[in-house]
Amino acid sequence: MSATRPVFYVSDGTGITAETVGHSLLTQFGNTRFHTSRIPFVDSVERAREAAARIRAAGEQHGVRPIVVNSSVNPDIAAEIARSGALILDVFEPFLAPLEAELGEKRQAKVGQAHGMVDFETYHRRINAMNFALAHDDGMSTNYDEAQVILVAVSRAGKTPTCIYLALHHGVSAANYPLTDEDLEHDRLPPRLRAHRSKLFGLTIDPVRLHQIRQERRPDSRYASLETCKREVAAAEKLFRAERIPVLSTTHVSIEEISSKVMSTLGIQGVMF
Amino acid sequence: MSATRPVFYVSDGTGITAETVGHSLLTQFGNTRFHTSRIPFVDSVERAREAAARIRAAGEQHGVRPIVVNSSVNPDIAAEIARSGALILDVFEPFLAPLEAELGEKRQAKVGQAHGMVDFETYHRRINAMNFALAHDDGMSTNYDEAQVILVAVSRAGKTPTCIYLALHHGVSAANYPLTDEDLEHDRLPPRLRAHRSKLFGLTIDPVRLHQIRQERRPDSRYASLETCKREVAAAEKLFRAERIPVLSTTHVSIEEISSKVMSTLGIQGVMF
Repeated sequence: MSATRPVFYVSDGTGITAETVGHSLLTQFGNTRFHTSRIPFVDSVERAREAAARIRAAGEQHGVRPIVVNSSVNPDIAAEIARSGALILDVFEPFLAPLEAELGEKRQAKVGQAHGMVDFETYHRRINAMNFALAHDDGMSTNYDEAQVILVAVSRAGKTPTCIYLALHHGVSAANYPLTDEDLEHDRLPPRLRAHRSKLFGLTIDPVRLHQIRQERRPDSRYASLETCKREVAAAEKLFRAERIPVLSTTHVSIEEISSKVMSTLGIQGVMF
Repeated sequence: MSATRPVFYVSDGTGITAETVGHSLLTQFGNTRFHTSRIPFVDSVERAREAAARIRAAGEQHGVRPIVVNSSVNPDIAAEIARSGALILDVFEPFLAPLEAELGEKRQAKVGQAHGMVDFETYHRRINAMNFALAHDDGMSTNYDEAQVILVAVSRAGKTPTCIYLALHHGVSAANYPLTDEDLEHDRLPPRLRAHRSKLFGLTIDPVRLHQIRQERRPDSRYASLETCKREVAAAEKLFRAERIPVLSTTHVSIEEISSKVMSTLGIQGVMF
């Protein structure tokens, strides 16, 4: 295997866009080892010069040309970064000319605005949705009138992380309800959930995986035993079928994907970045 | 003003990359109104055909050529999408040839892998960090040994959303500690925080903004009064100065930016996507 390739995500803001694009690109190349670093807030020529020096030094140290994924839109900054000698991949540059031609409008370069608070309303919807998710986590509050979705599942099936992702990324007010032994025994939904049937989405999980997750939390408890996990998952799945609640297994699916599936299934659009 | 321009974020996965890049591009064009939609999970030629039909229909409805920001790397899917007649901006395409040349390696197109669970370890670190953030929110648990950062601030200054963002996006174990009246009166840190001085980061906020936020939570309370907010913020800032804790004002800064600043100040690298 060849030398580890240094990669830098350079941005005039947080660097999240450069990182997102860069990560997707690098995963396409399985035979190269990468060492990735962020250089955020490169918003002046002086900072660009410092960044270029750091990038150049990494190239010398690794004995291989660095790669820069750059999301700065300021030409003076880009010029400084280019002096590092790295291969520069400008995230936005290829798309600006076609967009200008299509829209009949010149772009207005604005430094670091993509993840700033440009859209105050969108930002607030996300923060409010997160406060909602925290207040309605794990059945703590069961006032679901303002919920856009209520995730229903047995304990540790992935409800909380998904709710928080839905809130933080999509601005969706997501509550979650942990199925109790009583719910599972009676094989039907509690009345306070039935009133919000169109908002319900079930999560399920492979019982062996659930057993592993619960073992980390309460080792060798009855709660964590494989028997309990099998029984609860089977009962939950039966309940979802009987009540015709859409279901997704979280076993091999990330919270990003679960969130997208929940939204497309329930027809929730969410905020747009 | 001209017609609203329909924009579609098309992806074989969740569409988050396409959306992130597309949003940044659109913010550069202030004179056009956009109507944005996601079309996630376009992972077959048939789904691509459906997507293309939907895009074409939007163009006819709005009377203007749609714009597609596409992150699918499958050429068959891309070809179907192109038949919609939209302006297609392929997020990854411009960078693949230069990367192949630089790395001396052909890319392996993998559908929808960017936000899948390819890197199980990274994913788990993020989920574990989020559980940590929830368990250590608002001073609930004060066992800070495993914390990478402890955000210190008065109530409602932005600690919780920042901790959760740090966890979910960066895989950083972030705790937070709400300064009590007692801390503020004595003008010094509680001993359990002093033991972790290198992990501390202070958040402050404009008292008027804090007053607005607290009013939403507990209207016309002493807690929410402008006087209380002014006094608490002044005392907290004095404490941060005396204890030499790095500080950031959250008033006009998003949680993305606060998180990046916290990490670069404390030298935390976080997981890489």
